[in-house]
Amino acid sequence: MGKVYVVGIGPGGAEQITPQAREAMARADVLCGYTVYIDLVQPLFPEKEVYTTPMTQERERCRWAVEAARAGRNAAMLCSGDAGVYGMAGPLLQLCPEFPEVEVEVVPGITAALSGAAVLGAPLMHDFCVISLSDLLTPWETIEKRLLCAARGDFSICLYNPSSKKRADYLRRACGILLREKGPETVCGWVRNIGREGQESRLLTLGELQEEAVDMFTTVFVGSSATRAVCGRMVTPRGYEGKP
Amino acid sequence: MGKVYVVGIGPGGAEQITPQAREAMARADVLCGYTVYIDLVQPLFPEKEVYTTPMTQERERCRWAVEAARAGRNAAMLCSGDAGVYGMAGPLLQLCPEFPEVEVEVVPGITAALSGAAVLGAPLMHDFCVISLSDLLTPWETIEKRLLCAARGDFSICLYNPSSKKRADYLRRACGILLREKGPETVCGWVRNIGREGQESRLLTLGELQEEAVDMFTTVFVGSSATRAVCGRMVTPRGYEGKP
Repeated sequence: MGKVYVVGIGPGGAEQITPQAREAMARADVLCGYTVYIDLVQPLFPEKEVYTTPMTQERERCRWAVEAARAGRNAAMLCSGDAGVYGMAGPLLQLCPEFPEVEVEVVPGITAALSGAAVLGAPLMHDFCVISLSDLLTPWETIEKRLLCAARGDFSICLYNPSSKKRADYLRRACGILLREKGPETVCGWVRNIGREGQESRLLTLGELQEEAVDMFTTVFVGSSATRAVCGRMVTPRGYEGKP
Repeated sequence: MGKVYVVGIGPGGAEQITPQAREAMARADVLCGYTVYIDLVQPLFPEKEVYTTPMTQERERCRWAVEAARAGRNAAMLCSGDAGVYGMAGPLLQLCPEFPEVEVEVVPGITAALSGAAVLGAPLMHDFCVISLSDLLTPWETIEKRLLCAARGDFSICLYNPSSKKRADYLRRACGILLREKGPETVCGWVRNIGREGQESRLLTLGELQEEAVDMFTTVFVGSSATRAVCGRMVTPRGYEGKP
């Protein structure tokens, strides 16, 4: 019986792939994932068999991996960032009742909230929320409720999937909701192409963020009421300002 | 002029230290941090100079690191997990106005929310909040507000610092707040000593969690209304159950 590894490969560069993730990919007989992620790691394992699928065929990919394991082969499913944050760990584990004999190991990776935060400074130092603006599987009303609750709780907020061709105004709409509770001067930031060629980042206010055009390769950060721009970095204090 | 690296070393094992983190520690002339973290990495850099301080002397540690950089030495400040999540990245960057000439690089690591989640399964697959129950720097009223907002938003929740000698009943109190909005059957989990000798984990309901004794080495996960126990793993779906 083979095993399925669900592996977070981080933002994309080899320097943020953990040894545990590399080991899982080395042990796998086949690497399975969205084409872009396979392309990122193939240079590390040039002889390794790969199985790629388009972005939306996630259930097929999961089923393929567990079938491979049942046939005695180790399969590593690759995810950008962390496998357990909007990744493949959930869908894979949800198949478990159909394949209870297959062992699944989840290997954590550096999700965009952390890699993007490190570029901007330290926006997530204290309590924070991570919210996806993608309404492909989640009603917009639910996303609105989460944005409102996150803002009312004065959390720092990290927004995934802030934009796509079909959802060009979702960030604007999300900012509109946040502005019900947060001031327009709230310190925000975004990072595009984290850890990859063409990485860009910017600090700006929430009011400016509402007008900002971002794409699907961008991760957005909205500060708490205590977040400040310090020497061009986005910094959220760990507690009350002024305390040691 | 030296440089300061603020490095997340992950839960503690070498297998979750990224190459980027290892490189930063290799480039440093001195490793600086809480004794426990220095002890974890010293075997990787047996010849490296180290500077250790007790847990609470964080400002002194930051100041020491920037002074070392000003004197021309590279200093790496080590943090458990990720440097930008309840770590040293914020305090270090807050010193920047006093030391604007010193370059600071934040190196992300695997924070407990991610490493613990991977042990339990996939509890943070969808929108989630991270909240610390430590009221050392944050008023309990603020923590209560955040717990309530996180519960109202139906987020999955990861609780850091759930307990200490002085705060033995904080998890119980936190669960009491969550139970105002969440059902007692809500799927929860905890992981103790993530990635280290003596790692333990357990799935349980929110009602059971309220009675559970946990220690300071434990990370606690509270599911959303959609979270389920599947084959003994804690799994939160990415969207509405039943959708592809």
